[in-house]
Amino acid sequence: MYNSLVEHRKTEDLEQDGFSKNPFFHGIIAEVPEQHRTTEGHTKIGYALYIYSYSSFVGRAIYMEDLYVMPEFRGKGVGKALISKVAQLALAAGCHQLNFTILNWNKPSMDFYLSQGCFDITAAIGYHCMRCEGEALKQLAQL
Amino acid sequence: MYNSLVEHRKTEDLEQDGFSKNPFFHGIIAEVPEQHRTTEGHTKIGYALYIYSYSSFVGRAIYMEDLYVMPEFRGKGVGKALISKVAQLALAAGCHQLNFTILNWNKPSMDFYLSQGCFDITAAIGYHCMRCEGEALKQLAQL
Repeated sequence: MYNSLVEHRKTEDLEQDGFSKNPFFHGIIAEVPEQHRTTEGHTKIGYALYIYSYSSFVGRAIYMEDLYVMPEFRGKGVGKALISKVAQLALAAGCHQLNFTILNWNKPSMDFYLSQGCFDITAAIGYHCMRCEGEALKQLAQL
Repeated sequence: MYNSLVEHRKTEDLEQDGFSKNPFFHGIIAEVPEQHRTTEGHTKIGYALYIYSYSSFVGRAIYMEDLYVMPEFRGKGVGKALISKVAQLALAAGCHQLNFTILNWNKPSMDFYLSQGCFDITAAIGYHCMRCEGEALKQLAQL
């Protein structure tokens, strides 16, 4: 769970990737009334981005890619409201798990998630996240 | 990457979850000709299960949930062929990353993936896998 989506992706890419017929992600947005807008004038102050996924063991699952709240709105329950909504959507879709990743040195986030009943399956059973990208991915595609 | 999908999920569930209008997963199957069928008569001897996902940083990605080859067909390049096909599908869909998880005590698998140019982002930058399930997930959905 890192930084804001909009800092890293172009609007056109987000529209194409998230709002086409077969979207690569789903999202929910946290908004505040006009009178509580940020110093820069924003009323959309947080979001969660999620994907439906699957587990061989338990079946339907949901993967939360991002949970973001603007710094000036942290500590007010916005993150809790967003993850709670993702949990509701997961249950409504028959999902048995909510999965996500976190950088283990991000202690405030880790403490938050642990306090919400989430557990660290890397620490508990040794799951490691693996990645292939760039030239290595192109190479892998050559059999 | 663990055990066989078919040991853990009912056929009806797999049909409904993977082959409906909005499937929870996609899959590819490795088959051998009849004359190479297993001692139990199977010709479908491996599979890869994957999901399209997203990264705030790089955009489109693919997540490989499972890569499985029946024990008697291991060491013959079937796993390599399956992951290579997943990499091809990833590139064809404009994905920049192939992500997956692995149990870090599964040394043969870890060695295989590292030899294919994948890297361990838990070891490298501290990504931890987190999960919420069961009663904790129901509790989380109650705001």
